[in-house]
Amino acid sequence: MKATPVIAIHGGAGTILRQAMNAEAEARYHAALTDILRAGERILADGGSALDAVTEAVRLLEDCPLFNAGHGAVFTAAGTHELDASVMDGATLEAGAISCVTRVKNPVLAARRVLDVSDHVMFTAAGAEAFAEAQGLEFVDPSYFYTEARHQQWMKARGTSGTMLDHDAMTKFASDNDLIDPDKKFGTVGAVAFDAHGHVAAATSTGGITNKQAGRVGDAPLIGAGCYANDATCAVSTTGTGEMFMRMLAAYDVSAQMEYRGVSLEDASNDVVMNKLPRIEGRGGLVAVDAKGNVVLPFNTEGMYRGFARVGETPFTAIYR
Amino acid sequence: MKATPVIAIHGGAGTILRQAMNAEAEARYHAALTDILRAGERILADGGSALDAVTEAVRLLEDCPLFNAGHGAVFTAAGTHELDASVMDGATLEAGAISCVTRVKNPVLAARRVLDVSDHVMFTAAGAEAFAEAQGLEFVDPSYFYTEARHQQWMKARGTSGTMLDHDAMTKFASDNDLIDPDKKFGTVGAVAFDAHGHVAAATSTGGITNKQAGRVGDAPLIGAGCYANDATCAVSTTGTGEMFMRMLAAYDVSAQMEYRGVSLEDASNDVVMNKLPRIEGRGGLVAVDAKGNVVLPFNTEGMYRGFARVGETPFTAIYR
Repeated sequence: MKATPVIAIHGGAGTILRQAMNAEAEARYHAALTDILRAGERILADGGSALDAVTEAVRLLEDCPLFNAGHGAVFTAAGTHELDASVMDGATLEAGAISCVTRVKNPVLAARRVLDVSDHVMFTAAGAEAFAEAQGLEFVDPSYFYTEARHQQWMKARGTSGTMLDHDAMTKFASDNDLIDPDKKFGTVGAVAFDAHGHVAAATSTGGITNKQAGRVGDAPLIGAGCYANDATCAVSTTGTGEMFMRMLAAYDVSAQMEYRGVSLEDASNDVVMNKLPRIEGRGGLVAVDAKGNVVLPFNTEGMYRGFARVGETPFTAIYR
Repeated sequence: MKATPVIAIHGGAGTILRQAMNAEAEARYHAALTDILRAGERILADGGSALDAVTEAVRLLEDCPLFNAGHGAVFTAAGTHELDASVMDGATLEAGAISCVTRVKNPVLAARRVLDVSDHVMFTAAGAEAFAEAQGLEFVDPSYFYTEARHQQWMKARGTSGTMLDHDAMTKFASDNDLIDPDKKFGTVGAVAFDAHGHVAAATSTGGITNKQAGRVGDAPLIGAGCYANDATCAVSTTGTGEMFMRMLAAYDVSAQMEYRGVSLEDASNDVVMNKLPRIEGRGGLVAVDAKGNVVLPFNTEGMYRGFARVGETPFTAIYR
């Protein structure tokens, strides 16, 4: 019997404290995650590919202002928005990524076009925008990425510390009782899926970290760090302190442990998130599926916006531990 | 007894055909590789760190017009030069990388500054140049990167094919009997070292691929793809068809196979270069050292500019198989 197709998504991990949220804000997150899971589930139910399902789920996460990607992206130190995205197809090991774009409405669609049509895997900055433009993708004025909530976060972050990954600054920030988003300094969105054809895929997108230095590239657009997919093992999308995920090759490491140590998706993911990342103070989590339809959503922070949906079943969504 | 410190370097791999070279050109390459190895060897002999030795070796490779990095970088399709570099310290797993800079004289020094002083791991484009400028690094006019040999290559490549990794185009190109550099479409430079303190480090730098689309990022600045170092396993610097090295996480995969499969540096490197990369038509090679002082320099192309030097011994250099 074939395993049931499944999609899992995340909307970022961090110091998401129950006491800093209220019922209304929680309900808004659960509703957004559920709607997006249902959209991905429909694609998979219709026999669509894992690659199409994760691309569409991340496009919807980008369009939702609750999450730090696309519309809803955080501000850089320069007061601008810089967006990164990546996508990988487990069936072919083909991948596409873009970093540091400022006017592409949906970065994940640009990453997908790189995968689909380019001999290259990654484009950055002006060259990435030129590629997206040549591909006829939708462009927006940079003001499209402006949201009042993110602007307030930025104004606060500018007043705290230049050290963006300072845990003290994060705690202080969270205690400011920002109902929409207590800590999105390392917010990222992502999706992984397993389809009816036995293939897996992953996609990741981010608006970066609040008040980051211009030009900083995190793990989200980096194949093997923030995104990885291989039918032989698994598909992974991560979120967290990007620099530590880059140094650990967090997404690929889950796959490598499955392939070379012969451990399960669950054991490999837990080792990366609960053991390896904390050794270098890496905080965050990931969502992953394997080619048997198993799903894991581990994180080492107070919370991670997350959920999964198997075709024909009611989506599961969660925020806290 | 402690193992002897050692440094290994490469100056790119590809269709480097004996019949397209002459004795004078060969001698020039051997002399350049030997001089650079001696400089790295001196640092290691004086008790310097692997990190300092690889940084200095790559700086010298960048300054040498024979190799595609820094002065000697190839031209993009837009007729410009875009430079990438990365460095990683096996002792701390700290890393630094920059991509798509156009005016930084020595990209590897900018990557090293990212490692030394920034909370971030990677900067791209204008943000990377702003970082380098704030760090007081040397800037040059873009014309510094112009070399007549590279300009001729570009003029030829423009006349051949838009598909940069087209093997036919490469072969045609090589047969043009360009004495300086028969095929540097995937040229990159790099170094790995093992020091007297038992630490390893890696550094990689590139001018990209001739006639590449502007903004394309290859494996050279990507931790885990073109560069990786971990005292527990090895240090690796790669060169080749960057996209395939990115999709395979080639540098990190050597380390992962050593850690999780328990195989030797030699077996892990050979599997990556001779088995895994060819499966997706990945062409190129790598240099790697482990923390016992073993050195390997495998490649699956006709040639790779390469060499290594153990402290107190005469450097070894080679070009062909």
